[in-house]
Amino acid sequence: MRVVSGMQPSGRLHLGNDLGALANWKTLQEEHDCFFFVADWHALSANYEDTGRLRDHVRDLLLDWLASGINPDRATIFIQSQVPAHAVLFVLLSMITPIPWLERNPTYKEKQEQLEGRDLSTHGFLGYPVLQAADILLYKAEAVPVGRDQLPHLELTREIARRFNSLYRTGVLTEPDALLTQFPKVAGTDGRKMSKSYGNTIHLSDTEAEVRQKLKTMVTDPARVKRHDPGTPDVCPVFDFHKIYSDAAVTEQVNRDCRTAAIGCIDCKTLVADRVVARLSPVWDARAEIETDPRRLEDVTQAGRARAADVAARTLEEIRDAMKI
Amino acid sequence: MRVVSGMQPSGRLHLGNDLGALANWKTLQEEHDCFFFVADWHALSANYEDTGRLRDHVRDLLLDWLASGINPDRATIFIQSQVPAHAVLFVLLSMITPIPWLERNPTYKEKQEQLEGRDLSTHGFLGYPVLQAADILLYKAEAVPVGRDQLPHLELTREIARRFNSLYRTGVLTEPDALLTQFPKVAGTDGRKMSKSYGNTIHLSDTEAEVRQKLKTMVTDPARVKRHDPGTPDVCPVFDFHKIYSDAAVTEQVNRDCRTAAIGCIDCKTLVADRVVARLSPVWDARAEIETDPRRLEDVTQAGRARAADVAARTLEEIRDAMKI
Repeated sequence: MRVVSGMQPSGRLHLGNDLGALANWKTLQEEHDCFFFVADWHALSANYEDTGRLRDHVRDLLLDWLASGINPDRATIFIQSQVPAHAVLFVLLSMITPIPWLERNPTYKEKQEQLEGRDLSTHGFLGYPVLQAADILLYKAEAVPVGRDQLPHLELTREIARRFNSLYRTGVLTEPDALLTQFPKVAGTDGRKMSKSYGNTIHLSDTEAEVRQKLKTMVTDPARVKRHDPGTPDVCPVFDFHKIYSDAAVTEQVNRDCRTAAIGCIDCKTLVADRVVARLSPVWDARAEIETDPRRLEDVTQAGRARAADVAARTLEEIRDAMKI
Repeated sequence: MRVVSGMQPSGRLHLGNDLGALANWKTLQEEHDCFFFVADWHALSANYEDTGRLRDHVRDLLLDWLASGINPDRATIFIQSQVPAHAVLFVLLSMITPIPWLERNPTYKEKQEQLEGRDLSTHGFLGYPVLQAADILLYKAEAVPVGRDQLPHLELTREIARRFNSLYRTGVLTEPDALLTQFPKVAGTDGRKMSKSYGNTIHLSDTEAEVRQKLKTMVTDPARVKRHDPGTPDVCPVFDFHKIYSDAAVTEQVNRDCRTAAIGCIDCKTLVADRVVARLSPVWDARAEIETDPRRLEDVTQAGRARAADVAARTLEEIRDAMKI
């Protein structure tokens, strides 16, 4: 099965991404023909005014992928802007996509409001679901991993594919199915959902010292003020980390000992930090190894670009034939 | 000076095009570095539902150009869709172009109304001035030949270039100047302006018999009903043809003899038909010669594509550097 998925380059990945999208990609690449791409043109749609760090973001994203086990021998890894066919199909699909379909996209107005202060009433921002459709349809993806909130976008891709096939009496475009994916909510160091915009993240590329320091200062059950106060693990974000990273025995132990104040927060955090460090150590090792080869990222993306461009060129040819252009 | 100009492939060219755009291009190619392109993607913006004859239209347009003296040794002649860089720059400029700039484009609503019955509320139709800007800015055109009615489009291209240069603190995009061009109004066979949409055209590719037949049935001064009625050349579209195609002596003679009924309409039309045929004969000869070489059009457009793609790639590189992507 052909699977296509992209990520915007918007900074280093964190534990939430690792447990969500990356874990999902690693499973998918074992079983399917996966195309994973850095969506750098999409990054422009909301950030065209501030592109100063985009190249660094692209590099960081690729490093995070490879260090985490996204495997260029199994998946096609490439950078969107290196495959001009995405732009060509964007032009063609743009011609047949009614503006009302884009305006009723629920995230359109929402994101415009969220990001007030930026001028997002641009032609490209309105059209980003069209670019997304091009990204997917170019590879005849049969499935696209999405969270529930992204279903309307995928539905738009399906509608555009149907409209194209109906206008040109063809079956050349494949309607992709949603691979509905549960992305676990991981707490950040302040107890809110881990998210770059809250500045509460633990990055995959943080050093061991940074990881330990962040966990050390992480918020806990706010009612447990002193060492001998008993705590309530159910409301403690550190306990959430135990549930994810510690084994069942340690988690059970911590659960009991916190409630009786037999263990203090510092000790509890040290225990979980050891587990997070154990999880990240192979990622750090892999990253260090990748960084010994200054050409590694370019080699990976050049090979990916070649394969992607090849598949894309064949689809474009069929599309041109269907449209008789 | 670098000059860029395109034509949509929408059918065979007629005498109005010959006296207007083509005559202008022939002058321009002698003095400037001209890029002339077949705007086949633009043809989709209003006609995406009906592409069945697009490939024929592209071929006819190129044949008309070459037969009329547009010279591939002097100008770079290419097909827009064969240079993907146009699509890439469209994506990038789309990101920075405010929708209100496009909505206030005077021809946007107007054309939507004119072409009612077609669904033109598409993302691509709204964005066609952005694609036009890409077409022009990609080659750093210093001048673009335009009629007065197209000035708002060119101004939009200039605004997009200014916005880009200002956002990314660069001077990489060149604001093109308008080469304001008078396109003479040529009467069609029904006396109205010659226009494909009126079905009153004489094509450059009509046969001699077709040209003579069309001129023979052309409307004249409606007040001159019978052979011995005197006529008024000032209101006769055939006399307009004399002014364009006949020499001064013949035109003067016809002017006099019509008013006294010394010459009849048939004779007058034969005189002018001889001149139109004389004008078109070299075009017909050139077309026949071009058609002896089945690879000629492809050779011309491949060479043009190579040169255009080369210039475009260099501009795109500068654009990417300016945007830091």
